[in-house]
Amino acid sequence: MLSFANDYSIGAHPDVLKRIAETNHECTAGYCDDEHCVLAADRIRSACHDPTAQVYFITGGTVANKTVIDSMLRSEEGVIAAESGHINTHEAGAIESSGHRILPIKQRNGKISSSDLVHYLRSFHSDPNRFQMVYPGMVFISFPTEMGTLYSKEELADILGVCREYGLLLYIDGARLGYGLASPLSDLSLPDIARSCDVFYIGGTKNGALLGEAVVFPSGKAPAHFSTIMKRQGGLLAKGRLLGVQFEALFSDDLYSRIAKRGVEQAFRISQVLQKHGIRLWMPVETNQVFAILADSYADRLAKCVIYRYWLRYDETHIVARFVTTWAVSDDDIRNLDIILDSLG
Amino acid sequence: MLSFANDYSIGAHPDVLKRIAETNHECTAGYCDDEHCVLAADRIRSACHDPTAQVYFITGGTVANKTVIDSMLRSEEGVIAAESGHINTHEAGAIESSGHRILPIKQRNGKISSSDLVHYLRSFHSDPNRFQMVYPGMVFISFPTEMGTLYSKEELADILGVCREYGLLLYIDGARLGYGLASPLSDLSLPDIARSCDVFYIGGTKNGALLGEAVVFPSGKAPAHFSTIMKRQGGLLAKGRLLGVQFEALFSDDLYSRIAKRGVEQAFRISQVLQKHGIRLWMPVETNQVFAILADSYADRLAKCVIYRYWLRYDETHIVARFVTTWAVSDDDIRNLDIILDSLG
Amino acid sequence: MLSFANDYSIGAHPDVLKRIAETNHECTAGYCDDEHCVLAADRIRSACHDPTAQVYFITGGTVANKTVIDSMLRSEEGVIAAESGHINTHEAGAIESSGHRILPIKQRNGKISSSDLVHYLRSFHSDPNRFQMVYPGMVFISFPTEMGTLYSKEELADILGVCREYGLLLYIDGARLGYGLASPLSDLSLPDIARSCDVFYIGGTKNGALLGEAVVFPSGKAPAHFSTIMKRQGGLLAKGRLLGVQFEALFSDDLYSRIAKRGVEQAFRISQVLQKHGIRLWMPVETNQVFAILADSYADRLAKCVIYRYWLRYDETHIVARFVTTWAVSDDDIRNLDIILDSLG
Amino acid sequence: MLSFANDYSIGAHPDVLKRIAETNHECTAGYCDDEHCVLAADRIRSACHDPTAQVYFITGGTVANKTVIDSMLRSEEGVIAAESGHINTHEAGAIESSGHRILPIKQRNGKISSSDLVHYLRSFHSDPNRFQMVYPGMVFISFPTEMGTLYSKEELADILGVCREYGLLLYIDGARLGYGLASPLSDLSLPDIARSCDVFYIGGTKNGALLGEAVVFPSGKAPAHFSTIMKRQGGLLAKGRLLGVQFEALFSDDLYSRIAKRGVEQAFRISQVLQKHGIRLWMPVETNQVFAILADSYADRLAKCVIYRYWLRYDETHIVARFVTTWAVSDDDIRNLDIILDSLG
Repeated sequence: MLSFANDYSIGAHPDVLKRIAETNHECTAGYCDDEHCVLAADRIRSACHDPTAQVYFITGGTVANKTVIDSMLRSEEGVIAAESGHINTHEAGAIESSGHRILPIKQRNGKISSSDLVHYLRSFHSDPNRFQMVYPGMVFISFPTEMGTLYSKEELADILGVCREYGLLLYIDGARLGYGLASPLSDLSLPDIARSCDVFYIGGTKNGALLGEAVVFPSGKAPAHFSTIMKRQGGLLAKGRLLGVQFEALFSDDLYSRIAKRGVEQAFRISQVLQKHGIRLWMPVETNQVFAILADSYADRLAKCVIYRYWLRYDETHIVARFVTTWAVSDDDIRNLDIILDSLG
Repeated sequence: MLSFANDYSIGAHPDVLKRIAETNHECTAGYCDDEHCVLAADRIRSACHDPTAQVYFITGGTVANKTVIDSMLRSEEGVIAAESGHINTHEAGAIESSGHRILPIKQRNGKISSSDLVHYLRSFHSDPNRFQMVYPGMVFISFPTEMGTLYSKEELADILGVCREYGLLLYIDGARLGYGLASPLSDLSLPDIARSCDVFYIGGTKNGALLGEAVVFPSGKAPAHFSTIMKRQGGLLAKGRLLGVQFEALFSDDLYSRIAKRGVEQAFRISQVLQKHGIRLWMPVETNQVFAILADSYADRLAKCVIYRYWLRYDETHIVARFVTTWAVSDDDIRNLDIILDSLG
Repeated sequence: MLSFANDYSIGAHPDVLKRIAETNHECTAGYCDDEHCVLAADRIRSACHDPTAQVYFITGGTVANKTVIDSMLRSEEGVIAAESGHINTHEAGAIESSGHRILPIKQRNGKISSSDLVHYLRSFHSDPNRFQMVYPGMVFISFPTEMGTLYSKEELADILGVCREYGLLLYIDGARLGYGLASPLSDLSLPDIARSCDVFYIGGTKNGALLGEAVVFPSGKAPAHFSTIMKRQGGLLAKGRLLGVQFEALFSDDLYSRIAKRGVEQAFRISQVLQKHGIRLWMPVETNQVFAILADSYADRLAKCVIYRYWLRYDETHIVARFVTTWAVSDDDIRNLDIILDSLG
Repeated sequence: MLSFANDYSIGAHPDVLKRIAETNHECTAGYCDDEHCVLAADRIRSACHDPTAQVYFITGGTVANKTVIDSMLRSEEGVIAAESGHINTHEAGAIESSGHRILPIKQRNGKISSSDLVHYLRSFHSDPNRFQMVYPGMVFISFPTEMGTLYSKEELADILGVCREYGLLLYIDGARLGYGLASPLSDLSLPDIARSCDVFYIGGTKNGALLGEAVVFPSGKAPAHFSTIMKRQGGLLAKGRLLGVQFEALFSDDLYSRIAKRGVEQAFRISQVLQKHGIRLWMPVETNQVFAILADSYADRLAKCVIYRYWLRYDETHIVARFVTTWAVSDDDIRNLDIILDSLG
């Protein structure tokens, strides 16, 4: 079986695993207070061109999201997100578990627009009953989005401008940040990201790590006691160096970018193979996710040889199927997909 | 430097790491819905002699505690624990973050007694103002305790009896469960533990894993949707097989027990070395923690060669220092400690 | 100025206030453990034809909603409500403050349909990723709705049927319950309501009381320790008899119904006066709320003599205005409205 | 039966009730946005000698405590209180329901000392594991305390000094504030209170109101959106003017003070009557609570004629009984108590 099910189905990139093994017998301090975490944080600061950035290592994306949001919002504040934003769809109530409401606004290709954001905020602030409503305190966006699409530099600047005007924080969920930055279609760099928000995270789980994400507060603006807040929320690791070691490896020799670049290339190849066989795309392919429109019977037959994810029903006779890549998708995998599609006719 | 600082300062047991490497390129389902987690759960069920037990793998001890407690208590219920219980001292408010109060009762050598528990419950239930108080809904104990001590089979049965009489759940925090079961001073087995409570967890982090704990609900009594609850609380891993693989290794060839046994043996040796040099123990040594009473100046001099943890002030001129072992403490480490103590006079 | 702003702008019905004054110097137990609360609960049980119903008095609607929802849902569960449902629009995050997400579904005239409900539930239960989503645990409806409309007996039975089939609780917010039951367009009685849900509340604040609502659990199915939960949530009153005394008065001599009936009659008269002057209604008038479509300039001129509430923008040149009645709207008020509309031309 | 059970067993002071009746038919804005609330707030500001103070009216003491604490603390912070403090004993988990832990310190006569506070804070800040603990963010004291005792001006200044030094907020629970200020043994005035803390509340429920407390933020330092936070927490009243009207009355003609003064006088008389009959006091009588040590059999016989509250067991043959007064305790009540005690011999 070929698998393009998701970007967390295999283990770590070999270089990451090697570094874990090399350092396994070191005796270090716990709770990310060790030399590997210090070094990894330094490398991330350098990569961000922000020597004052604060970097924290946390176990996963859900706990990153709930911890960041809870640590930066006041109790009565909620977080604006695209309807399709991960926190609004698949976080199992993690954000609400800290008392914060998600305030969904409409999306297009997974993205929110600064004009829809302004519209929401104007409407809220002109509502005489707003004292009975949840105050917007933060904007959450994903880069790339859950649909694999990208905000341009200009779009991001516009959203940040609205946030600044209305006193909102801007948080970028970077579960797949590497794939976004590595895309030939992106005009944003890591330093651009760090300059364009109040907090973001650099996803490790989907970009070559066994687990772990790096939460970055640019310009030294982390909330007080952030390590304590991570522990309270369940995301701080006793053997925290496990996260530091991995990010140390990922930010050596450009590994983080190389992993992502390979994933994006293979996604582009998959989209070409699909289109060659007359399959339409549902969403422009910009990073490591390919969304294709498949006839029901075709989808069933394909499912016997290829693992993809059912995304949604497109119409009465078609579905949208998602194909996701990682660095580990080989050229043979692409060729095999081509052969399989040939055989399906 | 010799380090006896804690049981999470080095990486994984080599056999565990080896298994992670062997399986690294497998492509599996996410969120613990993979064959390794299935196999590891099977092995744990066998080891517990409970074919109906439900087993969940979670990232760490804090998130295990908060998830178990929140999933099993009603909103208005709290959890009884020893004053010295981990949830009452070093969980950074994780339990309260889900709205549950900790109801501390007095401890002796880290343990609560069934008679103190009965006293608390009688007092609560006879208080006409109890409707204004937090209802006790669960008893939390650690096995072994935070002071390295052990409940006997009889003590545990008595506590369970009180819980049953008063309709409370019993939860055993097994962060160091292996060391408890491996102690020559314990009369309890893993099946005994599984028969003696409503839920417990088998600690991996402190017993040879990189990270991870196995939450066990004996007799198939897990709360509905427990995986969702873990995700909501931040403890479910996308690459969940990382936890399954480790527990699969730990529960092969008796590895879990062997690791723990070695830790306990080395702790006993440390206690003999300390006593040989005239150092008094603060607490009986029963598992992998040794608490010693050191004169201030002696403690300072020792700290130049040995990493231990300051535990508390014993009197005006002495402290209590904690020495913790793992499987990785070598016989050379013990000999070196002996030599260092010789040199300190 | 004539005011039809809302149904909480004047004090209590004189008979309610009289009863408060008569009992003012009695010395009673606190926290609703007094004879007035007992008597009021008895009368409510009788009115519900449910001798086993459990009745609790609470300070207001928001705290009633959050307390009921939190006491009956598990942590990982959310509550389905109409997009226009009060808990989804104007509760200031009270429901989320206990960790529960609101799961909005579409509405028509303020109501949800059993078919939309089934569609939501089927879609949820067939989603392979539902373990990452908030589980629906309860359906919330308002009777009458926030738009003054009514569910029929058949519609309510259908919704209850879906709840039973999918294992959901059904909760009816009765902030304006009296007006719904008193409407000539309703085929539901108070015993019907009690038979058709798991919990509901009888609104006092908008139906002649100074403050207070009666939460009713039919068939003796209240959660354990509900008084404690009310206190924890902030809705239990030390001088609880203040609530008991008022409901005792409201459920004497049919006062609750008479108050509501008068409010509904006056709303119907207002709707006739508006229509006589060529003003279109936005929503059918079924209880004590009248929603009218007003041209912008007309609305501005009207606002100089009549207090109404801006509800929403209807189109580029019209708004929807809401007029609400209570028992205290006099026939003179209606006549004066007629005169004012005459003068506006 | 004579009742000295508590200070919330009768209704409102007649002047308060009269004002409710006089204003009953006024049509006002909701949610405390009315003229009575404005006027009452003005009067409270004047009484506090603080023209910039912000005043909010809330339904009760529990919801005042949870709302103030949650609105001013960060998620990871807890609140230091005396072991005997109301939030630590009888708030049914309301504080924890917002995620905040109570950090109890020892009390003497219901009071904490600045030196114990310093000791706690020094110990916390020197603990290398404090990142795993709940950070103290606020000190909660009751004035008067739950045992009826008073902080002196100097004691309060010392506590405030410690709070300022360690960056903690100081919150004064004034459920019985009037009785404290009216005591001949107090050297503190209302302006002193307002100058000595970050937030306090003026209790209405126990001082002549039907319900309601006034939360005061001196110097205009209320958290943003405090009305929204009150609604979210369940303490904001739709007919908010009910609270404004009562405080308007209480702060007219010195009524608040007169009510309290009368209560304190009657408590002093009760203590004299008790002592005249050879009954020992457990606690010095400083406000409206009298704690007496009664032999068991005597207590039983007394209970047939007088309602008091069992407080605690003093020794094997004695209990501590609490007698509480309000303005409504008449001179006849005192004489009758004397006669009853005479008859008991």
